[in-house]
Amino acid sequence: MAPADIPASLPLGLCLLLASGFGHAGKLLVVPMDGSHWFTMQMVVEKLLPKGHEVVVVVPEVSWQLGKPLNFTVKTYSVSHTQEDLNREFKFFIDSQWKTQQEGGVLPLLTSPAQGFFELLFSHCRSLFKDKKLVEYLKQSSFDAVFLDPFDVCGLTVAKYFSLPSVVFSRGIFCHYLEEGSQCPSPPSYVPRGILKLTDTMTFKERVWNLLSYMGEHAFCPSFFKTATDIASEVLQTPVTMTDLFSPVSVWLLRTDFTLELPRPVMPNVIHIGGINCHQRKPLSKEFEAYVNASGEHGIVVFSLGSMVSEIPEKKAMEIAEALGRIPQTVLWRYTGTRPSNLAKNTILVKWLPQNDLLGHPKARAFITHSGSHGIYEGICNGVPMVMMPWKTPLKLSSITRVTRRTSCASPAFTRTVLSLFGHQMDNAKRMQTRGAGVTLNVLEMTADDEPLDLAVFWVEYVMRHKGAPHLRPAAHDLTWYQYHSLDVIGFLLAIVFTVVFIVYKSCAYGCRKCFGGKGRVKKSHKSKTH
Amino acid sequence: MAPADIPASLPLGLCLLLASGFGHAGKLLVVPMDGSHWFTMQMVVEKLLPKGHEVVVVVPEVSWQLGKPLNFTVKTYSVSHTQEDLNREFKFFIDSQWKTQQEGGVLPLLTSPAQGFFELLFSHCRSLFKDKKLVEYLKQSSFDAVFLDPFDVCGLTVAKYFSLPSVVFSRGIFCHYLEEGSQCPSPPSYVPRGILKLTDTMTFKERVWNLLSYMGEHAFCPSFFKTATDIASEVLQTPVTMTDLFSPVSVWLLRTDFTLELPRPVMPNVIHIGGINCHQRKPLSKEFEAYVNASGEHGIVVFSLGSMVSEIPEKKAMEIAEALGRIPQTVLWRYTGTRPSNLAKNTILVKWLPQNDLLGHPKARAFITHSGSHGIYEGICNGVPMVMMPWKTPLKLSSITRVTRRTSCASPAFTRTVLSLFGHQMDNAKRMQTRGAGVTLNVLEMTADDEPLDLAVFWVEYVMRHKGAPHLRPAAHDLTWYQYHSLDVIGFLLAIVFTVVFIVYKSCAYGCRKCFGGKGRVKKSHKSKTH
Repeated sequence: MAPADIPASLPLGLCLLLASGFGHAGKLLVVPMDGSHWFTMQMVVEKLLPKGHEVVVVVPEVSWQLGKPLNFTVKTYSVSHTQEDLNREFKFFIDSQWKTQQEGGVLPLLTSPAQGFFELLFSHCRSLFKDKKLVEYLKQSSFDAVFLDPFDVCGLTVAKYFSLPSVVFSRGIFCHYLEEGSQCPSPPSYVPRGILKLTDTMTFKERVWNLLSYMGEHAFCPSFFKTATDIASEVLQTPVTMTDLFSPVSVWLLRTDFTLELPRPVMPNVIHIGGINCHQRKPLSKEFEAYVNASGEHGIVVFSLGSMVSEIPEKKAMEIAEALGRIPQTVLWRYTGTRPSNLAKNTILVKWLPQNDLLGHPKARAFITHSGSHGIYEGICNGVPMVMMPWKTPLKLSSITRVTRRTSCASPAFTRTVLSLFGHQMDNAKRMQTRGAGVTLNVLEMTADDEPLDLAVFWVEYVMRHKGAPHLRPAAHDLTWYQYHSLDVIGFLLAIVFTVVFIVYKSCAYGCRKCFGGKGRVKKSHKSKTH
Repeated sequence: MAPADIPASLPLGLCLLLASGFGHAGKLLVVPMDGSHWFTMQMVVEKLLPKGHEVVVVVPEVSWQLGKPLNFTVKTYSVSHTQEDLNREFKFFIDSQWKTQQEGGVLPLLTSPAQGFFELLFSHCRSLFKDKKLVEYLKQSSFDAVFLDPFDVCGLTVAKYFSLPSVVFSRGIFCHYLEEGSQCPSPPSYVPRGILKLTDTMTFKERVWNLLSYMGEHAFCPSFFKTATDIASEVLQTPVTMTDLFSPVSVWLLRTDFTLELPRPVMPNVIHIGGINCHQRKPLSKEFEAYVNASGEHGIVVFSLGSMVSEIPEKKAMEIAEALGRIPQTVLWRYTGTRPSNLAKNTILVKWLPQNDLLGHPKARAFITHSGSHGIYEGICNGVPMVMMPWKTPLKLSSITRVTRRTSCASPAFTRTVLSLFGHQMDNAKRMQTRGAGVTLNVLEMTADDEPLDLAVFWVEYVMRHKGAPHLRPAAHDLTWYQYHSLDVIGFLLAIVFTVVFIVYKSCAYGCRKCFGGKGRVKKSHKSKTH
C-alpha cells in the first residue's frame, strides 16, 4: 500500500492549528460617533495603542466630543453645518422628546418631526467622501480593520467602500438590523421589540403589538435611514440597504449583557461587553469628597440625566426638586439648567459629577438615573440601588434601551425580590436606607476588573489579525429567505409525498376498477333493470 | 405633591443590585458519567472543593473510572450487573461500530443492534432510586444544585425528582435535545445535524438530507431513550419526555467552542468551556522524555484512539502500522491490543501516554487522533497539526462530534488554508515537516490559562448560590409551539384583514348594486329588447 493510498482507507482530514499571530501590530481605522457614545469607545482605542497598533480616527470637524485632543492620529473632514446647527438640531430633538410620551415602539420615533438631527448626522458621510484627499489617504493606508459606531451609518459605508473587515461597537442596534445583520433568530413570540415596555412573557394582546411593531420596523425603518442608504449607494455606486451595510460585520461588540437583557438567541460573533466603563474608578476630588463627608449617616444620592442633557422643562425640574427635598440623603444632581426655585437644602446642583467614582463610594445610597447604558452599568458594578427615570430622548434611539430599563426591574428574579422589597413607591427611598441586602443577578461578577475592556480589545485585534472572523459568520447570510426557512426543501418533500400519494391512489383506483369495476357495472345494470 | 405621588408622574422602577453572595459555601450533588467523560468533570469538582463547598458524588458500584479513590464524599449504589457485563456490552458496542460505516446521521446509531450498552447505562437510575436509604440521604442533604453529565439521563431525573436547579456538563447533547432543552433556534437550512458529514453551507440535496435527519431525530430519538424516560416516569410518577427532563436545566456547560463549532444561534445560558482540559501541563516522565529526545530533528507523532479503546481489528491495525512506518517521525502509539506484525521501527507502542504533556512538547510534529473532544482541544491548545482518524464509536454518541471532526477541517478558513497546504493526501505528512505556519482560528487565544475551567466553576457556583439562573431562561419554554411561531397572532391578524376585506367587498358590492344595479338591469332588459 503506497502512502498515497492511506487517505482513501482512512476518513482523513488534515488540520493545521498553530497559535500564531499574537503580537501582530496592525493599522486600525476608527469611525466613531459623537457624544457619550465616544467615551467608552475611546477607552478601547486607548488600550489598543500600547499594543503597538497604529490608530487613525476619522471625525467631522464639527462635534461635541470628538474634537478634543487625542493621543492618536485624528483626520478631520469639513462638514456643511456649524456647531450651532448641530446644537440647535439636537436641542430641537431633545425638546420634542420631552414633549411626547411615546410608548408605541420605535415607530413614533421614526415619524418624529425632529429628524433634522439625524439628517445632519447622516450627512457627515457625504462630507467625508467629498474629501478626496482624505479618501485617497485612507485607501493608501491599507488598514487591517475598521472599528466603528454604527449610529450614523458612516462607519459601515466606509468599511464596505474600502472592503475592510469591521468591528461594530454599540449599546444596541436600532430597528431590526442586529437580527438581520448578524442573522440571529429573534422570534417575536418572546423577544420583545424595542421601546414597547414589554418583557419576554407577553399576553396575547402584547404579542399582537409586538408582532405589529416587528412588521412596522421592517416597513418603516428603511425610510428612516433613507438619507444614510442614499449616501451609501452614491458612494458605493450601487444601491444598498441597511442590511447590505450590516451583513459584512465581522464582530459585534455590544455594551450590554444578560444582567439586563432578556434571554434570547445570540450569535457567536456578538460579544457582550456590558460594564466596560465601570471598572476604572478614581479617588474623588476634594469638592466631591467634601459633599460626601458632609452627608453624615444618610449618605448621598447621585442624580444624573446623562451627559447629553443639560436642562429639562421647568415644571418637570420643579417636580423633581420637590421630590428630592423629601429624602434625608444629600442629593448630588448634575444639572446645568436654571436652578429650580423650590430646590431643597439637601440638593446640590453641580455642572458635572464623577458618576462612577461617586457610585463606588461606600456612602452612595442610591442612583437616580435616566437609564443610559453607562449609568446602569456603573450602578450595577458598584452595587448601588437605582431609581430609573428615563427621559424620552436619544437613549431611545438605541432600540433596546427601553427593554434595559424595564428588564432590570422586570425580569422574574428582579421583580420577585425588588418589588416585594420596595413596591413601586418613591417613598421607598426610605426603605433603601434600611435594607442593605438585595438580589444579585450580576453576570459581571464573573468578570475580573477590566475584563470586558480586555474582551473588546481582544476582538478588535482578532479581526485586525485575521482580516475578519469568517469562522463566526453564520452561513445563513448566503441563503435566500425561502432557503433559510427550508421552504424549498419542504416543497420538494411535499411534492414527493403528493406524487406518491397520487400514484398510490391512481393505482388503487385502477386496481379497484379492475377488481370491482365489472361487478359494479353489473350491479348498476342489474339495478337499472329492476326499475 | 406627596412623595407617594412621584412614581405616578415618573416612569419609575426600583432596582436593587448588590454584588452579594460571593463566598457562599454550599452543597453540591454530582451525578457523573463513567469513562473519559468523568476526567474533565472531575477537574471542575476538584476546583470547587477548595472554595468550601460540600460535594457528594453519586456513582454506581460497578464502573471504570468512578470507583477510583476521590477526595470527596462518594455514595455508591448497587447495580444489577457486574463489571464483566459492562465490559462485554461496551466491547460489543465498540466492535459493532468498527464494522459499520454509518454516515446517515444519528438514525443508524439509534437502530444499532448494540444497544445493550445503553440499556445497561440507563438502568443505573432504577438501581439508584431502588436504594431507599440513599434517596432519603439525598433528600435530607438539601443540596443547592445538581452538577450532572446528561449522557445516561439519570442526573436529569435526579434533579427533577429533588426539584434542584441543575448544571449540565457535556461535550454535546445527543439528538435534538440541546435545541429543545435550551429553546435554541436551530434552522436546518444552515445548522447541520450530527454525524451527517455536512457543513453549514449545503447544496439543495444536502439540505434535503439534513431536514430528513432533523425529522428523523424527532421521530426516533424518543424511542432510543425509551428505557431512560420510562425509568424517569416511574421515579417521578408522571409520564415525562426527554424534553421535560432537559427543560429545567439552568446552565449548560459544553466542552466545545466556536473554534470547532459552526456558527449557529446559541442561548445565553449555554456556556462554552472547550479547552478546559488542556492547560494543566506537567513535565514528561523519564520514559517519555527519552522517547522524545531520541526522535532527533524529525520529532514525534502522538497517536491515540482515546482512552476507551484498547484494541482494533487486526487488519485495520496492520494497515495503520504500515502507514505509520513510512513517516520519518517517531510515533508514540497508545495501544494495548496485539502488536501488529508489520510494526515499523519508528513506532513505539505504549499502554498509556501523557497526551497533553506530549503535545505540549516542542518536538511534537503531529497528532493522530480519533477526534475525541479532549484530544482535539489538546491538539488545538498546543498548536499541533492534527490528523483526524475518527473511529465509529461512542464519540458518535455526542451528536456533534462528527461536526467537530469535519469542521476543524471544513470551516471556510480551515478549508482554504489547510487544504491548499496539504490536499487530502497522507503523504502530505512530509509537507507537515516543512510547513510550520498555518491558520489560527483559535478562539482559545482569548482565554488565559485555566480560564475555561474557572468559567465552569463560576457557573456551577452561580447556580448553587442563586438556585438556578432564571434570568437566563428564555420565556420560550412557557410557550406552546403555535405561540412560539406566532401562529395564533398571525391567524388573528389575518382574520382581521379578511374581515375588513370582506366588509369592504360586501359594502362595495352593495354600493355597486345600488349605483349600477338598476342601470345594469335596464341595460340588460334593453339588450334583450334589441334581440
